[in-house]
Amino acid sequence: MGAALALAERARGRTAPNPNVGCVIVQPAPAKAGGRVVGRGWTQPGGRPHAEAMALAQAGEAARGATAYTTLEPCAHESPRGPACTDSLIAAGVARVVIALGDPDPRTDGQGIGRLRAAGIDVITDIRADAARRSMAGFLTRREQERPHVTLKLATSLDGCIALANGTSRWITGPRARTHAHVERSRHEAILVGRGTLAADDPKLDVRVPGLEDRAPRRILLSTRPEPGWEQIGAPEAIASLTGVDHLLVEGGAQAAASFLRADFVDRLLLYRAPILLGGKRGLADLGLADLDSAHGRWGLIDARMLGSDQIEVYERVKG
Amino acid sequence: MGAALALAERARGRTAPNPNVGCVIVQPAPAKAGGRVVGRGWTQPGGRPHAEAMALAQAGEAARGATAYTTLEPCAHESPRGPACTDSLIAAGVARVVIALGDPDPRTDGQGIGRLRAAGIDVITDIRADAARRSMAGFLTRREQERPHVTLKLATSLDGCIALANGTSRWITGPRARTHAHVERSRHEAILVGRGTLAADDPKLDVRVPGLEDRAPRRILLSTRPEPGWEQIGAPEAIASLTGVDHLLVEGGAQAAASFLRADFVDRLLLYRAPILLGGKRGLADLGLADLDSAHGRWGLIDARMLGSDQIEVYERVKG
Repeated sequence: MGAALALAERARGRTAPNPNVGCVIVQPAPAKAGGRVVGRGWTQPGGRPHAEAMALAQAGEAARGATAYTTLEPCAHESPRGPACTDSLIAAGVARVVIALGDPDPRTDGQGIGRLRAAGIDVITDIRADAARRSMAGFLTRREQERPHVTLKLATSLDGCIALANGTSRWITGPRARTHAHVERSRHEAILVGRGTLAADDPKLDVRVPGLEDRAPRRILLSTRPEPGWEQIGAPEAIASLTGVDHLLVEGGAQAAASFLRADFVDRLLLYRAPILLGGKRGLADLGLADLDSAHGRWGLIDARMLGSDQIEVYERVKG
Repeated sequence: MGAALALAERARGRTAPNPNVGCVIVQPAPAKAGGRVVGRGWTQPGGRPHAEAMALAQAGEAARGATAYTTLEPCAHESPRGPACTDSLIAAGVARVVIALGDPDPRTDGQGIGRLRAAGIDVITDIRADAARRSMAGFLTRREQERPHVTLKLATSLDGCIALANGTSRWITGPRARTHAHVERSRHEAILVGRGTLAADDPKLDVRVPGLEDRAPRRILLSTRPEPGWEQIGAPEAIASLTGVDHLLVEGGAQAAASFLRADFVDRLLLYRAPILLGGKRGLADLGLADLDSAHGRWGLIDARMLGSDQIEVYERVKG
């Protein structure tokens, strides 16, 4: 399932409004030697082929008697764009299907599992469901909250500044952190900045990573004043209307970041920190909190590591 | 030597103007079984007895043929307060002395090592010298730069704030981080705050840790305006005049912290970070940097860990 989850990441940011799914098909070894991967798939750009269809096509006859690991319940509905994956798995003769998460889509929701079992296939569910939920956060947030999953990125000094008092901001973080931030861009359908960042930096918001140059997301400006060349929204609440955007990356500045936090739309924090002190421009404008109790208990650290001499930390909204 | 360095920490902040030293005496085991600790010592408050004297007293006859590990070269000068440790080690019949760091005091500086060797004792030097330098940073900074070693403490939110916009600052960090910060206080001869912190918090600056209540450091106020009950200095440069202070902890606020950084007197950063976002009062006032190049390369991360849901990071000035 770990391999299937890794494959699902390849599709993140490219499949909206469909989920990004990963699938691995393994032919069991005769002895207890672990098995042999015969097919690997992930949801293709735009949503089709599905991960299972791609993995089954790769496996061919080798799918017979094999185990399919998939991060989401196989779909039970036919579409003009392809057959139901449930039927394809049955037709291919797989012996077992291991599923991380049930599909909330009412056209599938349990029916995929039911039909596989009715066909005599051994089905195991809820394997690494939390990781799958994180992996498909865009799809699930859009479905459950009718808006994109929002990541707020901040690249700051140790004292939380994004620029010197004189406005200089290039560069706070080093090349490894900046490359990481560009790869993160490629995992989102859209990036949003505020009017202040536009004026200060005129940001390209492209993906300057070899091999990912064509993955630049849509650019959204948070502003009520029209700006040529930019898609715009007037307030954080309008993100619900961004069709085709299941993952939104808010890159700043301080006012835009604060407005998304005040509206409680931020699901994930991506904090890059350079080992410098600035005493300059802060990364976050006033959140208007009345007391500290309302600040605590909102964020859980899920990842932290070094990128050169910088640090990256990932926090997620604490469910509550 | 690790054990000797740990013992030396017990004396930190209590021995100025003398170094805080640790000493362990080990009687070698007949087989290669590691040996047996027969004496442990650390510099006593005020500077005497020395670590070696305490360890030798504990070992008694068991010091004969043993190895003494000491974080600083044993002193070569007699004083009205006690004999030279070099002579005591020779008299006790130790076979070997392992030393982390040479003593820069001209009354010893190599003469301790020379006399031990002249007495036929096997002397090994430069064992964990970097750790010993860190351990005796107060003594060495006072000697080399004629001022105390300065630690700047900041307890902030993830976005670098020390309070809400309305001034509320209790509490940003949790009980484990606050206890850690109180133990840190006990390792300094003095704590300094600025006028703004005095007005906002009227801080006690005591050590609220069971068993350490009597270790409250001297309280220094950075202000030119007289304030009853406070020892005062008018500018960071005046720290040189703080007799008996080899370790100074600067606890804020934003202006005091910035003034010490601008004067380039901060040797160590102690950063406590709570997993909250505030968009409130920042922890550091303007440092007046003209460009980002002058911010980079100054701080090296030497320790990072969790204290409950908070993080602590320790940075040290990069030697240059």
